[in-house]
Amino acid sequence: MFKQADIITALVTPLNCGNQIDFPILKLLTNRLIEEGGTGFLIGGTTGETPTLSEAEKLELYAKFVKIVDGRVPIIAGTGSNSTAGTIDFTKKVSEIDGINAALVVVPYYNKPNQRGMKAHFKAVADASKLPIIIYNIPGRTGVTMDVDTVIELSKYPNIIGVKQCGSMEDFEKIVENTADDFLVYTGEDPQALFAKSVGARGVISVASHLYMKDLREMYDVMDSDIYEAGKIQRYLTPKMQALFMYPSPSPVKFMLNRNGLNVGLCRLPILDLNEAEQNKLLIALGEKEPTND
Amino acid sequence: MFKQADIITALVTPLNCGNQIDFPILKLLTNRLIEEGGTGFLIGGTTGETPTLSEAEKLELYAKFVKIVDGRVPIIAGTGSNSTAGTIDFTKKVSEIDGINAALVVVPYYNKPNQRGMKAHFKAVADASKLPIIIYNIPGRTGVTMDVDTVIELSKYPNIIGVKQCGSMEDFEKIVENTADDFLVYTGEDPQALFAKSVGARGVISVASHLYMKDLREMYDVMDSDIYEAGKIQRYLTPKMQALFMYPSPSPVKFMLNRNGLNVGLCRLPILDLNEAEQNKLLIALGEKEPTND
Amino acid sequence: MFKQADIITALVTPLNCGNQIDFPILKLLTNRLIEEGGTGFLIGGTTGETPTLSEAEKLELYAKFVKIVDGRVPIIAGTGSNSTAGTIDFTKKVSEIDGINAALVVVPYYNKPNQRGMKAHFKAVADASKLPIIIYNIPGRTGVTMDVDTVIELSKYPNIIGVKQCGSMEDFEKIVENTADDFLVYTGEDPQALFAKSVGARGVISVASHLYMKDLREMYDVMDSDIYEAGKIQRYLTPKMQALFMYPSPSPVKFMLNRNGLNVGLCRLPILDLNEAEQNKLLIALGEKEPTND
Amino acid sequence: MFKQADIITALVTPLNCGNQIDFPILKLLTNRLIEEGGTGFLIGGTTGETPTLSEAEKLELYAKFVKIVDGRVPIIAGTGSNSTAGTIDFTKKVSEIDGINAALVVVPYYNKPNQRGMKAHFKAVADASKLPIIIYNIPGRTGVTMDVDTVIELSKYPNIIGVKQCGSMEDFEKIVENTADDFLVYTGEDPQALFAKSVGARGVISVASHLYMKDLREMYDVMDSDIYEAGKIQRYLTPKMQALFMYPSPSPVKFMLNRNGLNVGLCRLPILDLNEAEQNKLLIALGEKEPTND
Repeated sequence: MFKQADIITALVTPLNCGNQIDFPILKLLTNRLIEEGGTGFLIGGTTGETPTLSEAEKLELYAKFVKIVDGRVPIIAGTGSNSTAGTIDFTKKVSEIDGINAALVVVPYYNKPNQRGMKAHFKAVADASKLPIIIYNIPGRTGVTMDVDTVIELSKYPNIIGVKQCGSMEDFEKIVENTADDFLVYTGEDPQALFAKSVGARGVISVASHLYMKDLREMYDVMDSDIYEAGKIQRYLTPKMQALFMYPSPSPVKFMLNRNGLNVGLCRLPILDLNEAEQNKLLIALGEKEPTND
Repeated sequence: MFKQADIITALVTPLNCGNQIDFPILKLLTNRLIEEGGTGFLIGGTTGETPTLSEAEKLELYAKFVKIVDGRVPIIAGTGSNSTAGTIDFTKKVSEIDGINAALVVVPYYNKPNQRGMKAHFKAVADASKLPIIIYNIPGRTGVTMDVDTVIELSKYPNIIGVKQCGSMEDFEKIVENTADDFLVYTGEDPQALFAKSVGARGVISVASHLYMKDLREMYDVMDSDIYEAGKIQRYLTPKMQALFMYPSPSPVKFMLNRNGLNVGLCRLPILDLNEAEQNKLLIALGEKEPTND
Repeated sequence: MFKQADIITALVTPLNCGNQIDFPILKLLTNRLIEEGGTGFLIGGTTGETPTLSEAEKLELYAKFVKIVDGRVPIIAGTGSNSTAGTIDFTKKVSEIDGINAALVVVPYYNKPNQRGMKAHFKAVADASKLPIIIYNIPGRTGVTMDVDTVIELSKYPNIIGVKQCGSMEDFEKIVENTADDFLVYTGEDPQALFAKSVGARGVISVASHLYMKDLREMYDVMDSDIYEAGKIQRYLTPKMQALFMYPSPSPVKFMLNRNGLNVGLCRLPILDLNEAEQNKLLIALGEKEPTND
Repeated sequence: MFKQADIITALVTPLNCGNQIDFPILKLLTNRLIEEGGTGFLIGGTTGETPTLSEAEKLELYAKFVKIVDGRVPIIAGTGSNSTAGTIDFTKKVSEIDGINAALVVVPYYNKPNQRGMKAHFKAVADASKLPIIIYNIPGRTGVTMDVDTVIELSKYPNIIGVKQCGSMEDFEKIVENTADDFLVYTGEDPQALFAKSVGARGVISVASHLYMKDLREMYDVMDSDIYEAGKIQRYLTPKMQALFMYPSPSPVKFMLNRNGLNVGLCRLPILDLNEAEQNKLLIALGEKEPTND
């Protein structure tokens, strides 16, 4: 299912003016990304503002999203939290939705388990889940790092099929080198997209693809024959990818989608929409506006 | 209410063998800590494993704890999460419980708001809450730092009455220096207990006080007349305070309470109880056991 | 000799307009600091711009400084580098100067020895030196940290008599707790001055004392009877102490001494004197100027 | 001159049993590296233990090394220190040696200049030097980071022809993107070798090439046609490259060269030779020995 899935978009959750999920817009966005070369989706990830979606909202979102995608590409759905019991419970509910291909389970944030605790958490979730599990390792948000050795050990556990890894190049390579060929290794860092595929990973789970899918697609297509041309595209994209994290995500990507005419709406607190000064800095960083001397 | 509250214990949540909150044990623990010199409690903090308590459990815990304390010392109850709407909703429910003196609201973790977002979050919560709010600033868990200037700005906002600060000495002093005398400044780092009170803070919100309340009490009492004697106590306590965070909290403090005869039970996943090797290292670090040469 | 030496100033090296060491100014500065309550000096430390002083300049500086101090307070002279052979050689030359009380030997910078290498370095230097050695542990400059256990081990070695420690509160306390009473423990961080003495250290090796000696003296004198009054002084001083490191040291302290009428001259490259914008920011941070809205 | 120089070895300084530079061994090593595909040398870099070489030793080393290389590949010689005047002086002396192609000048370590100071340092050195200058930006050793913008500004300055950059992927790409095509950009991190060339850099200044030159050569040759094959080689090499920095460099690489039969001798203090336990761990990490269960 994930064989061709080298660019997976970690989708925003469009909200309408009533602060409800905007499914028509979600459909437009989804179709456009597939047309531009997208090969998979993560729904209900961090970019989707899941901390501020209710459980009911998430279940409705996932169920309707399956209909929108309609089997064209694989779907990963976020189901993790910092409670093992809570994660098991919610993953079970999501697994009832036919058409979800995997559950993304984040390393528990805030309460800071150690490696033993992480293993126990993921094994318990994998055991209880009908859906295959993808680990989400993002130390900058969770406050803890799942070690390379833990990822490798869990990669051998039944029903754990992949990892979305945010970390150093060196750790990333070790995971690719020491896991089975069919274990799905994705970078969760857009600026590592070219690097990740070069060293044998499946690809990237991307935020920037909301805006730069065509460039990403071209980069991944051209690297087979001309790595230096692909390198030029990465060099061009990297500062834009970083700019999308100048302010709390997904406020920058939502602002740009809105500006480009696809109305994905505002963010929910504690994430604020960009104010005017932030908008200006973002546009300059994205090369959409000339820097001024103010 | 908080005038005398210089040592506030961030309580563990005792669990019985049915994995339910153990109220008789909680009562024993509470009474003992007050007898030993404790002057306040934080219930439902990180040490209380709130990520793995259901909302219903927390509400029952807080309501019954008010009865246990029975007005002897002030009570702070944890009510925060990384959703502003969710925090407002839960804080309202907690404020219905008569006898809670303040709500501890953590800086949103994981979704990483910026300073503007933090301000919006805390102002929205303070506006909606009948309970006074204490900010909990703990970058190592949340992935973001509330800047000193933000703390100072929020200290002037109605209904925000204090901060539990985990950070550098320099930032801590600036907060004390630049907030009103009645703004409650507590360190959330046990090893900063003496330092914090020396530079004018109210005191410490403490984990180590579960085990070392008498020493802490003596340190705070003696510092008025003999800072060097107090310094000796701090030097003695600091390695023990650090040892209680060698493994994911509250597993070390729960292990020690159990070992000392007060059966507070196990932890909930993803926090594991200490295995034998961890127990040994902890006991050595606490000076309860001789190091061996294995 | 170091019994009373609780505030040791890490002296700047005054330079005249010919870019030579200005001994008359050095004498004025030294006398003033003793009058204001200074109880010792470090000559030829980092603050003294030793990387840009020739060996001949350093030897002349140390010899003449002994005459200036004339036995009133103890003198520590910097002799370390990142070559063990070079450190031994220079320390021997300095030990020929009668009146120097100890040599400050920095943990080797840049080439990053491990703990074993550090021990070998310090033991070799201590063995070869007639002067007693004080270790200078400053990870932010050297790129490596001498572990607490290494400091403790070296504290027992003949001829190693103290440490100037820059690091965490916790490590600092462990060093005090686990070294002999006559082992000299100084903090090299001005904002830790009060904390350090509270937990039993000898005191501080200070840059800020060039400008705030009277406050430091008062803080150390009053803490015996009123720690909270001392805490207020520390809180007042800390932001100023930090401001002196807003720009590469010693350019801020030299600028302020010049501004206050004691002409210590410019810095040598690669340390530049403050430009006008930097001067303004410094003055605002020191509370010498009102912030503007530019 | 540097057109073909994609793999430049940062050479160790072989020492004979009299602790003097061993020129016959240096010649053997040099010739072997050229035969295996090396295309340039850095002599007198950090790997060459320059902090412990006297000025006279360095000048002799550089002069004799020119004869050894005899124009086959370009030579970069280390000339920097943390004194601007000292750097100018030594760079002038080195420029008298006919056959050195560029001087590597490190960002001043330990005294921590800011960006303004770094610019002043490099401009002063470039102005005074007949040799073209390559900047060496290595924050982990120097304690300061030369910002990307500073590198870009200096890249336009006459006589500054390149940078050896140690830092993030993102910064590295920005330097390549924003400097002229003939500005030499090298990574100083072996694990970034493939990445660096992919995004358009000249190549790598390498320590691991002492031992893995053939692999590096093959990786760089094959990447033009098969990036995934090159990626496999990088993945294989990365843990070995990291292992060579498990202990203070160059002790691991010297140990391995000695073990492989090329007697490059011991290190000078404060860098110690590997003890037996370290040797074992290194050999295991390099895949030269099976891990044991001790």
